[in-house]
Amino acid sequence: MSDYIRATYLIETPHPVGQAAEALAGEQSSGTFVAVPGETAELRERHRARVERITELETADTPSLPGSRPPRGTAETSPRYHRAEIEVAFPLENVGTNLPTLFATVAGNLFELSEFSGLKLLDIDLPPAFADAYPGPQFGIAGTRRLAGVYERPIIGTIVKPSVGLTPEQTAALARDLAEADIDFIKDDELMADPPHSPLKERVSQVMRVLNEVADRKGKKVMYAVNITDEMDAMLRHHDTVVEAGGTCVMVSINSVGLVGVSHLRNRCSLPIHGHRNGWGMLTRHPQLGIAFSAYQKLWRLAGVDHLHVNGLQNKFWEPDDSVVRSIQACLTPLLGGYPIMPVVSSGQWGGQAPDTYRRTQTVDLMYVAGGGIMAHPGGPAAGVTALRQAWEAAVSGVALEQFAQEHTELRQTLEKFGGGRR
Amino acid sequence: MSDYIRATYLIETPHPVGQAAEALAGEQSSGTFVAVPGETAELRERHRARVERITELETADTPSLPGSRPPRGTAETSPRYHRAEIEVAFPLENVGTNLPTLFATVAGNLFELSEFSGLKLLDIDLPPAFADAYPGPQFGIAGTRRLAGVYERPIIGTIVKPSVGLTPEQTAALARDLAEADIDFIKDDELMADPPHSPLKERVSQVMRVLNEVADRKGKKVMYAVNITDEMDAMLRHHDTVVEAGGTCVMVSINSVGLVGVSHLRNRCSLPIHGHRNGWGMLTRHPQLGIAFSAYQKLWRLAGVDHLHVNGLQNKFWEPDDSVVRSIQACLTPLLGGYPIMPVVSSGQWGGQAPDTYRRTQTVDLMYVAGGGIMAHPGGPAAGVTALRQAWEAAVSGVALEQFAQEHTELRQTLEKFGGGRR
Repeated sequence: MSDYIRATYLIETPHPVGQAAEALAGEQSSGTFVAVPGETAELRERHRARVERITELETADTPSLPGSRPPRGTAETSPRYHRAEIEVAFPLENVGTNLPTLFATVAGNLFELSEFSGLKLLDIDLPPAFADAYPGPQFGIAGTRRLAGVYERPIIGTIVKPSVGLTPEQTAALARDLAEADIDFIKDDELMADPPHSPLKERVSQVMRVLNEVADRKGKKVMYAVNITDEMDAMLRHHDTVVEAGGTCVMVSINSVGLVGVSHLRNRCSLPIHGHRNGWGMLTRHPQLGIAFSAYQKLWRLAGVDHLHVNGLQNKFWEPDDSVVRSIQACLTPLLGGYPIMPVVSSGQWGGQAPDTYRRTQTVDLMYVAGGGIMAHPGGPAAGVTALRQAWEAAVSGVALEQFAQEHTELRQTLEKFGGGRR
Repeated sequence: MSDYIRATYLIETPHPVGQAAEALAGEQSSGTFVAVPGETAELRERHRARVERITELETADTPSLPGSRPPRGTAETSPRYHRAEIEVAFPLENVGTNLPTLFATVAGNLFELSEFSGLKLLDIDLPPAFADAYPGPQFGIAGTRRLAGVYERPIIGTIVKPSVGLTPEQTAALARDLAEADIDFIKDDELMADPPHSPLKERVSQVMRVLNEVADRKGKKVMYAVNITDEMDAMLRHHDTVVEAGGTCVMVSINSVGLVGVSHLRNRCSLPIHGHRNGWGMLTRHPQLGIAFSAYQKLWRLAGVDHLHVNGLQNKFWEPDDSVVRSIQACLTPLLGGYPIMPVVSSGQWGGQAPDTYRRTQTVDLMYVAGGGIMAHPGGPAAGVTALRQAWEAAVSGVALEQFAQEHTELRQTLEKFGGGRR
């Protein structure tokens, strides 16, 4: 087996860049701080990680992170902090196709190294052996569209709000309004799983009765992503509850559940897994620390999520549009020749972002989730859903929203309510 | 149920601190960006998170993280960034005793909020209901000591090095040397789980044959933390392999496996779980982002780890000693009246750090893990182990290492080899 796992990092270091890169490669493969018995040259050559590329970038006067130490003997002078993009190749033979150990290899102790004042995993490139070991998304884009009955446009959805507090009956009443409003998709909030005031079993029973009934009448079942986030046995039990009630989607907080939990769920799951990435800001918000989405999304696709949150353009959060666009593109780029997943666009979406979203990504393979944008529409939720569809119709046909709104009342109302301060 | 989950955060914000704190509390409980139907005052009052305390700290001229937005209407002036420690109480009723959803609540989407230019979860305080739901560490300090046969001093251990590349036979040969050297504990590297060149089953079989044989002769079995990090079913299979071979410990990369995977393992595990926190630097190294160890260790104790890595004093990594000392103290502080775990001290340890470690923590309830400090001792591994015990003996009795070394050859050799550049 001479395959390699390749990882790209953005580094910042007071050391010469090449030396810092070698320190990382050593720490994450065959290195220790002194030579030990049993460590032959042959062994080291076969198992050492290799620095394959170094692209030097700018130099900074101050360190991005605390705790870096300049090379010995230079302590008196003011160190400068060199940034570079580096690529490191780890022998597959060191890891096998073990996803959590892959993570420990490419994103483990290296963040502790005092050689670095900045370290971010930008991307990973995996050998084909991983495709044999991990089946990945069961449903992906095509399977999700089939279950939702939505083709050739984004799947329009909303989040059940308020996030917490509604009883199962209240949630079901809301679901009825939304289903009557021809929504494609609804989801629980990530704060709402199986709490005492809305036990999952009872909530699923009540909501699915409504959704099944509307489906019988209209011929199209609203996809409901039930937040089954919980301990392993409970999560599998919740999954079965959803299946038995005729549900078509489960949702998990992926960072809270973890890679192994999600992957285990995938192997016992008969529904699409809606991957909520809450907590992601902690891993990526500092430009010189953590993980970039390009690497992150590959891990979760291997683990088997079918949908993955990517934030939205002009969102209410911290993330700039360029980053959101890159995330959508990353989800839609084949991984090991496949692993298709649905990017889930959300956060402050109300339809006004549809033209830019389409112009910049050229795709309708999205779930487009709006909260207040649907629920607080002046004409009610049904008008909110219609307005979002109109916004996407305009976006895809290249007609300005204001122009399209002249003949589409719901979109016009949306623009009047939400369009002022935002665009 | 009127219990609350309390979380303390270090925040940095261009908004008035109180407003930013309320934004966090709203986002993580009943808030959405516009009022929606179904959201009654009563509902909001019952389920909203409350800001319980605000302690204002310094103000900064530049933001720690990108993407924060000052309050509307102040965009023209240069914003200042106010730091504060805040405490937020989340109704237990919103979450139940669901550990992954607890994590999504106290460490989820809040990191995305544009109100903040810095956000770190400093601590969490849990209501007693969690103690009923989570059994926690099965072995803890007392159970680990019983299995290792080590009392009233630190458990002295080492990491099998090189990290990767040794065959099962080579690992077993090394284990024999270490067992003959009277080591208490050995562990696999976190990079080494079940790779093709050293399949776990074969490695455990070979190593445990050696350790069992030495134990039969000496009456004390070396504890071997086998890195079982893998997918769920494989991890449980590896666990059974270790049990069947007479092993006494399993190790997991906790950040890679995730909360749910570790907790599931705990419920099926009959050995102490050695929690390796590799990847932790990514979550904590920036002072204004992520999670502090005080909060982090509580989550993993609930999930059931028995040992948890804390780095070591004068380590080779980035972390300052004060932080390491706080981590050791955190592990040794009862959680919900119990949940005792062993702090695992490692990284560049060679014995020279024993006096400061003891002086600052006043405990010997530690696993003290040295790599090169044992393996590269001039007198061989046995002398390395003896030297570490001598260092701890000196530390506990308050005698300077140099003085103790006058009558203890192995310690003297250690001081000569490792003591020069470090102390």
